[in-house]
Amino acid sequence: MASPLSRPIAIIAGAGPGTGAATARRFAQSYPVVLLARTPASLDLLVNSINEDGGSALGLPADVANPDTMSSTMSQIQTHFGPDVTVAAAVFNVASQFSRAPFLNTGAEFLSSLEATARGASVFARAVIPFMLAGVEAKNAEHKRYPPTIIFTGATAALKGGSGLGSFAMSKFAVRALAQSLAREFGPQGLHVAHAIIDGIIATEKTKSYKPDTPDAKIDPNAIAEAYWFLHTQPRSAFTQELDLRPYCESW
Amino acid sequence: MASPLSRPIAIIAGAGPGTGAATARRFAQSYPVVLLARTPASLDLLVNSINEDGGSALGLPADVANPDTMSSTMSQIQTHFGPDVTVAAAVFNVASQFSRAPFLNTGAEFLSSLEATARGASVFARAVIPFMLAGVEAKNAEHKRYPPTIIFTGATAALKGGSGLGSFAMSKFAVRALAQSLAREFGPQGLHVAHAIIDGIIATEKTKSYKPDTPDAKIDPNAIAEAYWFLHTQPRSAFTQELDLRPYCESW
Amino acid sequence: MASPLSRPIAIIAGAGPGTGAATARRFAQSYPVVLLARTPASLDLLVNSINEDGGSALGLPADVANPDTMSSTMSQIQTHFGPDVTVAAAVFNVASQFSRAPFLNTGAEFLSSLEATARGASVFARAVIPFMLAGVEAKNAEHKRYPPTIIFTGATAALKGGSGLGSFAMSKFAVRALAQSLAREFGPQGLHVAHAIIDGIIATEKTKSYKPDTPDAKIDPNAIAEAYWFLHTQPRSAFTQELDLRPYCESW
Amino acid sequence: MASPLSRPIAIIAGAGPGTGAATARRFAQSYPVVLLARTPASLDLLVNSINEDGGSALGLPADVANPDTMSSTMSQIQTHFGPDVTVAAAVFNVASQFSRAPFLNTGAEFLSSLEATARGASVFARAVIPFMLAGVEAKNAEHKRYPPTIIFTGATAALKGGSGLGSFAMSKFAVRALAQSLAREFGPQGLHVAHAIIDGIIATEKTKSYKPDTPDAKIDPNAIAEAYWFLHTQPRSAFTQELDLRPYCESW
Repeated sequence: MASPLSRPIAIIAGAGPGTGAATARRFAQSYPVVLLARTPASLDLLVNSINEDGGSALGLPADVANPDTMSSTMSQIQTHFGPDVTVAAAVFNVASQFSRAPFLNTGAEFLSSLEATARGASVFARAVIPFMLAGVEAKNAEHKRYPPTIIFTGATAALKGGSGLGSFAMSKFAVRALAQSLAREFGPQGLHVAHAIIDGIIATEKTKSYKPDTPDAKIDPNAIAEAYWFLHTQPRSAFTQELDLRPYCESW
Repeated sequence: MASPLSRPIAIIAGAGPGTGAATARRFAQSYPVVLLARTPASLDLLVNSINEDGGSALGLPADVANPDTMSSTMSQIQTHFGPDVTVAAAVFNVASQFSRAPFLNTGAEFLSSLEATARGASVFARAVIPFMLAGVEAKNAEHKRYPPTIIFTGATAALKGGSGLGSFAMSKFAVRALAQSLAREFGPQGLHVAHAIIDGIIATEKTKSYKPDTPDAKIDPNAIAEAYWFLHTQPRSAFTQELDLRPYCESW
Repeated sequence: MASPLSRPIAIIAGAGPGTGAATARRFAQSYPVVLLARTPASLDLLVNSINEDGGSALGLPADVANPDTMSSTMSQIQTHFGPDVTVAAAVFNVASQFSRAPFLNTGAEFLSSLEATARGASVFARAVIPFMLAGVEAKNAEHKRYPPTIIFTGATAALKGGSGLGSFAMSKFAVRALAQSLAREFGPQGLHVAHAIIDGIIATEKTKSYKPDTPDAKIDPNAIAEAYWFLHTQPRSAFTQELDLRPYCESW
Repeated sequence: MASPLSRPIAIIAGAGPGTGAATARRFAQSYPVVLLARTPASLDLLVNSINEDGGSALGLPADVANPDTMSSTMSQIQTHFGPDVTVAAAVFNVASQFSRAPFLNTGAEFLSSLEATARGASVFARAVIPFMLAGVEAKNAEHKRYPPTIIFTGATAALKGGSGLGSFAMSKFAVRALAQSLAREFGPQGLHVAHAIIDGIIATEKTKSYKPDTPDAKIDPNAIAEAYWFLHTQPRSAFTQELDLRPYCESW
């Protein structure tokens, strides 16, 4: 008999305020959620709040770009949820450093964003996908309902470079390349791999001063979370690999 | 006081078996639906079935490519639902004729698909958008909930031409151009304009013999309908302009 | 022995001032050129100038969107150049009507640009391609040198719709769809089918007042002509299907 | 008076057999060429052959991904050609490691291709662009003729990921992002930044066994070199940022 601990879980990498936190809350309505951050203390408020609201959240320290610590993180997850734990949904939401700088003024740091994001996305995917494939095979009721889903948060700069934006664009293009490649490899195995183009400023405490007088000019992170949840609920006969999310008043 | 008749409606152009019928059923869960077809008799079964299930459906004859008949159709809708009727959702699902033929063997019919689809999409949009803008202004409870939404059904051939597929691809590229242009014009006015890339065979009676032994190899039209409904429910801070829908086992 | 009349020719549809005229002059350096226009009188100056400069130009009346007149035009070409005439290069440069207008203010004319351009491109291609395939088979010295080439002039709006630009974008998207489809069908038969994204204002008498103080801010039509000639000279092992042409100072 | 040594030069990074060598020969028809390789001995044959044919070639050891060695390489170039040397053309042709492997079987090496190529492209660009901007300012006769040009060699996988191709695609997407970003930043300063999508197998000694019976089924590297030379000759009123190169019989 399956133990209660064998319920599939959701894992969010990059659970900072904004998209990550909103996604965690949304998926916590259906799954125990594991939130990863370099400094898990930063997640305490979110974890507590989800747990108080009747969800189940666990914050774990993790450097998603480091294969060794990701491996150890997955072991901790097995310790906590049982060795047969499966992953219903994984969200890679680690931010690339957005910086606009004249190219010739940049130096070694130019690639650090690419390095962190591309490494992070691939190490994270390599760590969680085996637990998602196990979910496909498990075919327990919850997995049967929704195919295991991995979602990568992208940006406009995943489609288009920009003056002074090479560093950011390289990282976003690379993550999109990974998402497409994984979709083509793991789709036929029943995994849903999706990439979301977030084309706009996300409404957070930090962005309060951006277009303060235009209602809804910033993306509500809960709307992103709903979109991610929708992606997760798609049956395998109709997977969305890519969608964009953009405020009505954004020019593009 | 608003009369019960002033409830916003949904309009589906191209309500044949498959995507159109499934979309009609889905939107009928929330709105009275008007189904358009050249020969409305073909819609009787669907209309009756929706009405029997507790929804409200009305089939109207319409050549969506003909501005005069579309204008008359909108008048009939006002007669039926009241002069202040607004449109919450409109779906353009009129099929382009799919035909693969050596280019030099084609003749005048080469453009008939483009003609019908491009004209249909633009005439339909011009007819319904004023009733959608009225919905934005009305700000009644139902419209406030979900911004008025117009969705165009597209296909792989909206992104990529193919040998012998020029006729079909021209029509699908053109509809995508229209959808993008309308999104940029009417998004800032609060309308949601979306385009869906349907990349696969849709499961209908006609396509039964395609990959009969691979489960879910064809797109479930109800999954398309759910995606369209999801698009409709997006708040204006996070509109999706384009998404793809593809079976897990499709190569692309 | 091949008669002098059997030299392959170049055909330019849309030989107005700007790209068309420059292309005609460029190809006239190597081939007799046939220039098509609705009112061939408008071509007299260009035709005379090419002939005076040692080239060979012929202006013919043609409505490229009309299969009957295009057929009659090709017959005239055969009468003039011999029944075994082949086409080395064909350029479709018929302008789409550029107009920016609020969508709801447009009417039946909304599709006239699409209609003219899409019909024109497909009728023109259907008329000239048989004479290009004959060139592949002829394998005379000149054809052996450069594979027969058909080039479609496109624009930014072939890639991206715009507010109020639906009519123009639909026509440009559709021509791009045709070019891609023809490339996939006729490439393997040895034809080179190319599409050029002209992303900027072309320097002509009419556009003199645009950025008059920024040198080279407008595209020199001779540079487009050189690019078209370059496309024509590509060997079949390395065809370019699409390239963009854009002033250095254009933002995009 | 300008010394003879102040002639602008061309620099090719990745001058192995195939595209690199062909490009070196082509640009050597107009400029002294500097060829960079980790093991410059591998370039001896090419260098000698260019010099014997009346060109001027210099092989230099360089790890283009290492800012220190690239800096030292540029110093050697100044020592050789004079402190006021300028760069007319720079080609980044360093190959990404092409490997197709199941994602879960990959490890740390998964990112090595991205790392090498993305780092290489950005370090190379940062090293050569100042010498190209100097060329714009110099406005000597040769630079006036052709704007300084930097070309990045890309591949199909710059546009589309593939099953098992994530590593390769990430690197190619990232280089394309860099090329686009640099074009937008340095185009207005008069530099021409271009990206070439090489969509097919290049004919080299190593690829002899691929489609041996289909003439021209592999891309002639000299055709790529001609395309690169064409890009270099474009005036700034009509820069091509991206073009594809594909054998006539390739399916795409």
